[in-house]
Amino acid sequence: MSYYIAPVARLIEQFERLPGIGHKNAQRLAFHVLRMEESEAEAFAAAIIDARKNVTYCRICQNISQNEVCKLCADSARDKKTICVVEQPKDVAAIERTHRYRGSYHVLHGVISPIDNIGPNDIRARELLMRLGEEDVSEVIMATNPTVEGDATAMYLSRLIKQLGVKVTRIAYGIPVGGDLEYADDITLMRALEGRREI
Amino acid sequence: MSYYIAPVARLIEQFERLPGIGHKNAQRLAFHVLRMEESEAEAFAAAIIDARKNVTYCRICQNISQNEVCKLCADSARDKKTICVVEQPKDVAAIERTHRYRGSYHVLHGVISPIDNIGPNDIRARELLMRLGEEDVSEVIMATNPTVEGDATAMYLSRLIKQLGVKVTRIAYGIPVGGDLEYADDITLMRALEGRREI
Repeated sequence: MSYYIAPVARLIEQFERLPGIGHKNAQRLAFHVLRMEESEAEAFAAAIIDARKNVTYCRICQNISQNEVCKLCADSARDKKTICVVEQPKDVAAIERTHRYRGSYHVLHGVISPIDNIGPNDIRARELLMRLGEEDVSEVIMATNPTVEGDATAMYLSRLIKQLGVKVTRIAYGIPVGGDLEYADDITLMRALEGRREI
Repeated sequence: MSYYIAPVARLIEQFERLPGIGHKNAQRLAFHVLRMEESEAEAFAAAIIDARKNVTYCRICQNISQNEVCKLCADSARDKKTICVVEQPKDVAAIERTHRYRGSYHVLHGVISPIDNIGPNDIRARELLMRLGEEDVSEVIMATNPTVEGDATAMYLSRLIKQLGVKVTRIAYGIPVGGDLEYADDITLMRALEGRREI
């Protein structure tokens, strides 16, 4: 039973449904909304509706998009022969921030994770393979996260892609720039040594 | 510059305005909204608008309310001669959960904090004093938090209230039930000793 009036109890409940927001935090957020200007609350609510209704997925790369084909896929200046495969739309944003990659992307929207019952058919892997069959692609860069699931997904996809005669690469593991050897974990350090390059 | 499409960038920005939500967390919440059912997103947005528009403050106790006078103040079974003064509406909910208090409340909506430039006129202290002048009150229980600001606010108000001939009490400090003496801080332990009662 809630000791709050109905509109406040309902708002707390809505905030509690969000990932990583517990009951105390949901209360705090709800009281923050009560203190907002009415126009601010309206802008917040409108942003939720707008994002949910007007965001779709690019037919080609599966990234979030406002149109059937996203801006990056529609951009003729981008190299369509190189596809960088990532887990989530936020990974596209992260790579774009480097300003160094001029190829195109493919967003899987997840990784293969048998423990969570997520198989190849639960991520947008089929769309990637179909794309490779249709387009003239020379290299696929696997940029899934360096986790057990990310590595397994990269390995699984690379085997299928190599059968299509397309080169597959994996982003480098190593010591983060500005990092400290002393604090690097053993596996990262081992991978950094294995991946050494002549200078 | 944001590397997200406009509706997503706007939603991330809205989440970032909430207290304690940083950029990464705001991204995570925004992507959660994208994955919601449309009806869920609509319910979330409606709860924000509803709470902001239909919640007002009780004319008597200043607690959040759907009507001019809140349910607790309108309840004739509640003892109106005892007023429990708290900082926030959530404190009323916390005390109500104990099912042991049958008096009424007064919500200050803050504490006096010179360092944050919050004086007695920035909290609902005047409303409390006016209420004591109008109603027949025999005891005011100070239930502000046991912090420097909560204590100072309780002290400041108690001086003014005593001048009106009304008894003022402060909730007890001590070891929390189920707590461990060894882990109690020195001040709490000292207060627990000072507040000892015959058994």
